[in-house]
Amino acid sequence: MNKVKKLIATVVLSAITMSAYAGSEIETLINMLHENGMVTDAQYGRLVDELKQNKIQTVKKEAKVQQQLVEATKPSDVEVEVKGGVTVKTRDGKFSTKVSGRVQADAATYSGDPEIGDGTEIRRARINLQGTIYNDWGYKLQYDFASTGANGKGIADAFLSYNGFDNMQIIAGNFKDPFSLEYEASSNHVMFTERSLVNAFSAGRHIGTMVSTKQKHWSLAGGVFGDSLTATNGTNHAQDEGWGLGARATFAPINEKNKMVHLGLGLNYRDTGGFDIAQFKTQAETHISGVNIVDTGTITNVTDFTKVGLELASVMGPFSAQAEYITTSVSRNNASDLEFNGWYVQAGYFFTGESRHYKKGAFGGVKPKSNVGEGGIGAWELGLRYSTLDLIDADIDGGEADSVTLGLNWYATPTLRFSANYIDVLDVQGGTYDDQEPRIFQVRSQWAF
Amino acid sequence: MNKVKKLIATVVLSAITMSAYAGSEIETLINMLHENGMVTDAQYGRLVDELKQNKIQTVKKEAKVQQQLVEATKPSDVEVEVKGGVTVKTRDGKFSTKVSGRVQADAATYSGDPEIGDGTEIRRARINLQGTIYNDWGYKLQYDFASTGANGKGIADAFLSYNGFDNMQIIAGNFKDPFSLEYEASSNHVMFTERSLVNAFSAGRHIGTMVSTKQKHWSLAGGVFGDSLTATNGTNHAQDEGWGLGARATFAPINEKNKMVHLGLGLNYRDTGGFDIAQFKTQAETHISGVNIVDTGTITNVTDFTKVGLELASVMGPFSAQAEYITTSVSRNNASDLEFNGWYVQAGYFFTGESRHYKKGAFGGVKPKSNVGEGGIGAWELGLRYSTLDLIDADIDGGEADSVTLGLNWYATPTLRFSANYIDVLDVQGGTYDDQEPRIFQVRSQWAF
Amino acid sequence: MNKVKKLIATVVLSAITMSAYAGSEIETLINMLHENGMVTDAQYGRLVDELKQNKIQTVKKEAKVQQQLVEATKPSDVEVEVKGGVTVKTRDGKFSTKVSGRVQADAATYSGDPEIGDGTEIRRARINLQGTIYNDWGYKLQYDFASTGANGKGIADAFLSYNGFDNMQIIAGNFKDPFSLEYEASSNHVMFTERSLVNAFSAGRHIGTMVSTKQKHWSLAGGVFGDSLTATNGTNHAQDEGWGLGARATFAPINEKNKMVHLGLGLNYRDTGGFDIAQFKTQAETHISGVNIVDTGTITNVTDFTKVGLELASVMGPFSAQAEYITTSVSRNNASDLEFNGWYVQAGYFFTGESRHYKKGAFGGVKPKSNVGEGGIGAWELGLRYSTLDLIDADIDGGEADSVTLGLNWYATPTLRFSANYIDVLDVQGGTYDDQEPRIFQVRSQWAF
Repeated sequence: MNKVKKLIATVVLSAITMSAYAGSEIETLINMLHENGMVTDAQYGRLVDELKQNKIQTVKKEAKVQQQLVEATKPSDVEVEVKGGVTVKTRDGKFSTKVSGRVQADAATYSGDPEIGDGTEIRRARINLQGTIYNDWGYKLQYDFASTGANGKGIADAFLSYNGFDNMQIIAGNFKDPFSLEYEASSNHVMFTERSLVNAFSAGRHIGTMVSTKQKHWSLAGGVFGDSLTATNGTNHAQDEGWGLGARATFAPINEKNKMVHLGLGLNYRDTGGFDIAQFKTQAETHISGVNIVDTGTITNVTDFTKVGLELASVMGPFSAQAEYITTSVSRNNASDLEFNGWYVQAGYFFTGESRHYKKGAFGGVKPKSNVGEGGIGAWELGLRYSTLDLIDADIDGGEADSVTLGLNWYATPTLRFSANYIDVLDVQGGTYDDQEPRIFQVRSQWAF
Repeated sequence: MNKVKKLIATVVLSAITMSAYAGSEIETLINMLHENGMVTDAQYGRLVDELKQNKIQTVKKEAKVQQQLVEATKPSDVEVEVKGGVTVKTRDGKFSTKVSGRVQADAATYSGDPEIGDGTEIRRARINLQGTIYNDWGYKLQYDFASTGANGKGIADAFLSYNGFDNMQIIAGNFKDPFSLEYEASSNHVMFTERSLVNAFSAGRHIGTMVSTKQKHWSLAGGVFGDSLTATNGTNHAQDEGWGLGARATFAPINEKNKMVHLGLGLNYRDTGGFDIAQFKTQAETHISGVNIVDTGTITNVTDFTKVGLELASVMGPFSAQAEYITTSVSRNNASDLEFNGWYVQAGYFFTGESRHYKKGAFGGVKPKSNVGEGGIGAWELGLRYSTLDLIDADIDGGEADSVTLGLNWYATPTLRFSANYIDVLDVQGGTYDDQEPRIFQVRSQWAF
Repeated sequence: MNKVKKLIATVVLSAITMSAYAGSEIETLINMLHENGMVTDAQYGRLVDELKQNKIQTVKKEAKVQQQLVEATKPSDVEVEVKGGVTVKTRDGKFSTKVSGRVQADAATYSGDPEIGDGTEIRRARINLQGTIYNDWGYKLQYDFASTGANGKGIADAFLSYNGFDNMQIIAGNFKDPFSLEYEASSNHVMFTERSLVNAFSAGRHIGTMVSTKQKHWSLAGGVFGDSLTATNGTNHAQDEGWGLGARATFAPINEKNKMVHLGLGLNYRDTGGFDIAQFKTQAETHISGVNIVDTGTITNVTDFTKVGLELASVMGPFSAQAEYITTSVSRNNASDLEFNGWYVQAGYFFTGESRHYKKGAFGGVKPKSNVGEGGIGAWELGLRYSTLDLIDADIDGGEADSVTLGLNWYATPTLRFSANYIDVLDVQGGTYDDQEPRIFQVRSQWAF
């Protein structure tokens, strides 16, 4: 209001102080007629007065309209965005809320040995609520309806974060331990329908607190963690839950658009608490059957175990490659220590020219050059992976497996993905399924945002 | 920006090329004074120049204001609608997201035999996230909190659809098999608190893919399905899950506002996979007690079963009627085939003059002529249903039941409904509850959108 | 449209009927020139006509611009608010929807006897959908992902309400029985991380219907209730579920800003239905361990029980105090009646000068004077509580416990809270943990809106 008045006053003043209404034909005419003696001096005086008054009126009117126009075109305080989910944020950046979700629907058929049942599955069905409060604080709650059960089993992310320091984040609640390039990427964005055999060593999510910094060329994260949501001492009240420490450092000497080299190192220590057990197992890069092709079973007398992971990845335009090696050392009471390890290497190529998106130590989603529904054909990617996992050491015979996966991904839009994977388990030695090599064909349809 | 400049240029040009500022008193005066010899030719020339310059300035100014007004009154790119849930959509139709839900709270009291416990229940408590991405794609995730448990038990709809072809939809994920008029309608809109006894033959939801077309006077849908979310081979890895085929055709020779005749035919085939079992059962058109008044128990050695359903329905102003007959043929190994069947017929009448809403092969919600909260009394509907189900054949004695239901519905608003049902089980023959005929009074309050 | 035309017509008419264009220099000039004989009468007539026409055009143009400006500055029909969650409401108050949630992440360490395991927990992870439909109706669905399981176990609030009467609400669905000041407050707002020992007598949530009125100085609520969501007769179909009656009256003779005195009386009657059992138990004002420090175990032959609660609370600026006494009388068949009771008293003080917020019979959230993220330090509160619970009577030896809790709360913003509690169980007599007094240190991070 005050501003409006000021503006009008300024404009009016400048109009008054202007010696003449530059180029005004009426003013010129009046002056001419006065010069030519067609109007008297008195008449001329009156005309000049009226002219001045009218100029002021006109300028006032125009200024008022301009002010009204400024008001009318002022953007709203709240921005609403819809692109899959809904994001609402205040224009000052103080608050935001996003409601979103994902559904992955799978089907698989199995051949070879062992006999595994074909079937279908909703792999993940998640809803997210996340946002910003008072500039510096972030929150998230993500629940997986495909994974419900006791002890809040379906809770994925449930945390609070503080981002008030430069490039640094403090986070508390339930979230992923910082470990493994493959696991850091969302399941929406992993190249194949399931992560590699080496995901048997995934550090998972725990309740804890972590400090991290993510720069363009490097990232560093370290935290202290309690146990997972489902691991509860509820059934054995006298025992402490497990706890752990985790840290991850990444380095990207090259990190340009469509060109990237990534190196990473992860450390993850877990104390087993009062339960003294550990288990490592994995299905054959599938999830529907429930058959763990290698499985240590419950290892007892375990005091603690430590995982060390090495990461290597690169993007060169439409081509991407990534490899990880993870070793897990298990300390036991009254028994020899154990050492398990595994690695995978994978490569992908976009026929349609897209590039894998890398940001601050992790791969993100794929954005097709042209979307289906907008006249395009989406992005098409072919991927190949070899992975191997060895769960045999000392008295523990969890088996060893090698497998190769061929995958085709069709990203119809940035939020829609269809995948077909053919997994050939090349070799299983030891464990329950010694010398049995299943083959799996599985498909997925996915929306995620 | 460019557009603004263009517009101004066009307007200015037309102002210049206009031979004269039609009806401008100053121009007329100047011309007159020139004619009358009151101003010299030189003065006249200068006046005409200034006049022209000023005209251009004026027109430019006005054009700019108009352009600013166009900007200011331009509708926002995103529309937000709230009417129970929230719908956000882009004005170009490219994206939309809807967050909504429903709660049905029930109470029931039982009399007669068998002894059944009175009680209360949250029958359904659902949350939905659904929408459109890039024009042609649709997504939905609907979860029922009243039905949680392992294996994503509470997931109702979880799918992805493509609508880029004319009047045709391709859908993939978890959704209802196309079978039965009663089951196709949302539980929000079914005339009674529970579907009829014949709902024992409901085809349910499965993970699969379906193609459908829905026209004003007919609809056709056909799909291939895996098993349900809860039926998993997780406990018996060697066995394949079941799978099925489903198709439904509907024909509405009359389909006008408040006047409709519907005919339908449904087919549903299920292979039992490696489990070889089937079971058909139902409570007495109630859900709280958990007593299945007729129940085949687990039938073993079942290779497959096929359901055939016939549908008939009509709307005549406030009056509606609907009937279905379903027969289920069960094929067994080493035992005779089985044949079960049932039918119901129901009629409803709106005292308040509303009409049942029918669209593309299914009944939808009721929209009261006047809402409570806006000075109205809502819509009041009385319904009557007779249903019968026979689950006795060969060695299987699941029992046979007949029942009649009287229902009163009060739709206070389009999103609020209160129902009272009195169910009288007329006759039970065979099965566990031979000759025992319970009576049920149950009420429901519901919000749904 | 019509309005625009009317407005323009009015303005134009007034322009025409104006005797002259007040202060128009051109009009003055024309008149002068006519008077001076510089223009002929005919010419003068033509000039005056043109003048009049142009005046009308100008006024019309200005009126149209004003009308366009009115349109452009009209507020939208829908308001969107984001401050943690998202609220969307129509400007006429007819509809609203709010999507929100909360996460409480806890960690605890135990010392003393009995041996209790340390651990972490997502205490609550809730999502809410609530709002208004057609002015008078309200709805809510609140689900706790940290408490999922069979029978819709995680459903907290799930109801429908009618608010069409003055200061009165009718509610139906699943919600809290009106009983206990401590339990009426949201878990977000309770002074300590867990409610007191006396919360063993909490009346909980049931499916039912309630009428309540809430005034500035008093409130009254009474309802009839079925059983809780998880207590189902599903496993014993012949038995009725329990039911109950509940009422609560509160009186606040002083209820000003920062100054309040509250008195309350609660009554809660429960019939055990066909199950004839009751149990009262509580953990030691912690939740992670699962150890119930006092526990009656399942009491059989219970026909019904009645709880009576007395409430007292006060706020004096930054200081608040609150106390409750609850006694529970249990009626048994073939056995003597039982009487259990407990009480607590607590006080809190804000170092930062805030005041506990009280409204209509319950405490609400804390609003810091200055928020972290806006240059402030939030609100800091210190609390102290003493509570005692006696679950010993006749043949039932559930134990008796006394405990003292020291709590520190940091409300960084109105939606963020960090708490640290030290609980010292002073004395346990009888029951399983006779003479064992654990000490607990627990912390919580919370976002809630």
